[in-house]
Amino acid sequence: MTQTSTHTVNRQILLASRPEGEATVANFRLAEAPIAPLEDGEVLVRNHFLSLDPYMRGRMNESKSYAQPQPLDEVMIGGTAGEVVASRNAHFQVGDAVVGMGGWQEYQRVPAGARGVLQKVDTRHVPLSAYLGAVGMPGVTAWYGLTQIIAPKAGETVVVSAASGAVGGAVGQLAKVRGCRAVGLAGGPDKCAYVVNELGFDACIDYKAHPDLKSLSKALKEACPNGIDGYFENVGGMILDAVMLRMNAFSRMALCGMIAGYDGTPTPMSNPALILINRMKVEGFIVSEHMNLWPEALKELGTLVATGKLKYRETVAQGLESAPEAFLGLLKGRNFGKQLVKLI
Amino acid sequence: MTQTSTHTVNRQILLASRPEGEATVANFRLAEAPIAPLEDGEVLVRNHFLSLDPYMRGRMNESKSYAQPQPLDEVMIGGTAGEVVASRNAHFQVGDAVVGMGGWQEYQRVPAGARGVLQKVDTRHVPLSAYLGAVGMPGVTAWYGLTQIIAPKAGETVVVSAASGAVGGAVGQLAKVRGCRAVGLAGGPDKCAYVVNELGFDACIDYKAHPDLKSLSKALKEACPNGIDGYFENVGGMILDAVMLRMNAFSRMALCGMIAGYDGTPTPMSNPALILINRMKVEGFIVSEHMNLWPEALKELGTLVATGKLKYRETVAQGLESAPEAFLGLLKGRNFGKQLVKLI
Repeated sequence: MTQTSTHTVNRQILLASRPEGEATVANFRLAEAPIAPLEDGEVLVRNHFLSLDPYMRGRMNESKSYAQPQPLDEVMIGGTAGEVVASRNAHFQVGDAVVGMGGWQEYQRVPAGARGVLQKVDTRHVPLSAYLGAVGMPGVTAWYGLTQIIAPKAGETVVVSAASGAVGGAVGQLAKVRGCRAVGLAGGPDKCAYVVNELGFDACIDYKAHPDLKSLSKALKEACPNGIDGYFENVGGMILDAVMLRMNAFSRMALCGMIAGYDGTPTPMSNPALILINRMKVEGFIVSEHMNLWPEALKELGTLVATGKLKYRETVAQGLESAPEAFLGLLKGRNFGKQLVKLI
Repeated sequence: MTQTSTHTVNRQILLASRPEGEATVANFRLAEAPIAPLEDGEVLVRNHFLSLDPYMRGRMNESKSYAQPQPLDEVMIGGTAGEVVASRNAHFQVGDAVVGMGGWQEYQRVPAGARGVLQKVDTRHVPLSAYLGAVGMPGVTAWYGLTQIIAPKAGETVVVSAASGAVGGAVGQLAKVRGCRAVGLAGGPDKCAYVVNELGFDACIDYKAHPDLKSLSKALKEACPNGIDGYFENVGGMILDAVMLRMNAFSRMALCGMIAGYDGTPTPMSNPALILINRMKVEGFIVSEHMNLWPEALKELGTLVATGKLKYRETVAQGLESAPEAFLGLLKGRNFGKQLVKLI
């Protein structure tokens, strides 16, 4: 219950400047801060893993978004999984595995009264890092968009972009559990093979092999002989346009990410009249606004991971200083599965 | 109950060719057909009014739409209101006022067994032509999009494009009945004055006075100081883009029409990422697919019209041969309120 002298310096990555167009490593800065002794009620967590996620790019801008911008010269926001290394709070013991929003830093000091900020997790059947992926925010994101917006019936066809990613991979596997045909879109033959062979999707289209709308639309027609009933959108741009051409009457689209639009100019939707023509429902969502459904989602996701029915892959960068480069790679699709930074 | 000799020739307007780009009068052809004596169970209706509606433009194309294309060399589809002039069907008497889908022709012969095709209407408190407008398909369209998709709460702001039209005018008035702030978009100062002074909207923006996105967006900001919670879209294009910039978090958009896209090239939505950023719901609908709700809608609409609380205006073209020109004018927004053709 007492703080040891080994935890005295906290290394952090701050947002140094806002991107003009594409984000670069120059937008970030490494800093060091002393760790003062804990006050009564406080907890000190050593972060083992940082989660890197596309939403962070939106926070780097000053423009209107669904969340407050990340302040300059402060620690970059982000989910973390780690271990309690000191505690003056009866609810947490040294050695507890916890997840929280610790940000891009090696230690997180949780103030008294902020108990909900830190969640204890059970690592006997589910690995600690999975609480940042399949059994964390990305998994719940997949679960929410699929079950609450797309709400597919058995036999329907569900398509998801960025299918080898943490969210996309879960979307397709959850759709398969519900008796749907699951079709992914991913970049490159390796990712597509993984999506089909390891994750069990029915098909996966390599969008890099289809550089124009007509070609991609044709590939979708072949992979989705009965059209598309549900689309989980992580990307936007030309992929969105191609999918729109194959959506069925009364189809549903969950809008979760628009990576293509984060850097500078927005990417248009070429033919929004298709929403009318096909009587579609298109809905955007932010999973953190639906906390009431997280327990239900985490229960299904945790059970599926523990029983080996929900698979995932991780790309792990080593050391805090690798976080900016790993994050920029994520924005360009260089990761394979959930992008993490390992800090110990 | 017997057919009189005065009804022997039926003048009709047929679709002569499909438009290439903009529709023209050359796409239509006037024809005459004899009216044979009625068979048992048949009804002959003399159409008093034809309804002209934007959806008809979509039917003129061969491309995929929500409905079958209008066949070439057949009578143009369309709603009609008229009077039974001969009947060999016990359910209909000569003199009954009826509405149906009679098409662009002076007489409609209704086959036996097609009883549901023709609806008797009560013209004591509601004029016959209103059953093609405020108490007909346009009114129900307004009612459905507003109550079933936008579902506004009192105090919210609802915006509608083409606000002086048959659908748009009803949307705003139904929103006012529900305690909302109603803001319209219409073309020209006369239409805007009508929308505010006669229909009772809180404000109406003349989109023709705002030729660019920035100017229109600014006008919307002034008219909607608390942002936009619900948008009823009849138009598409730049107006849609401008409204998108002012939509609130968790706002709803009912997609009813995309006039701008009917002629040839689709008009894009510039920034679909706003659907995500603002967690919007965007839903397209076709009112004829929700017949189960028509009785509820017509009850409210009929009561409001009969009591003078739902106002509307009509533009009436005279004579069957004026229908093509009147229809093309409708597509260009030259009508003022519901566009009808009077046949007698």
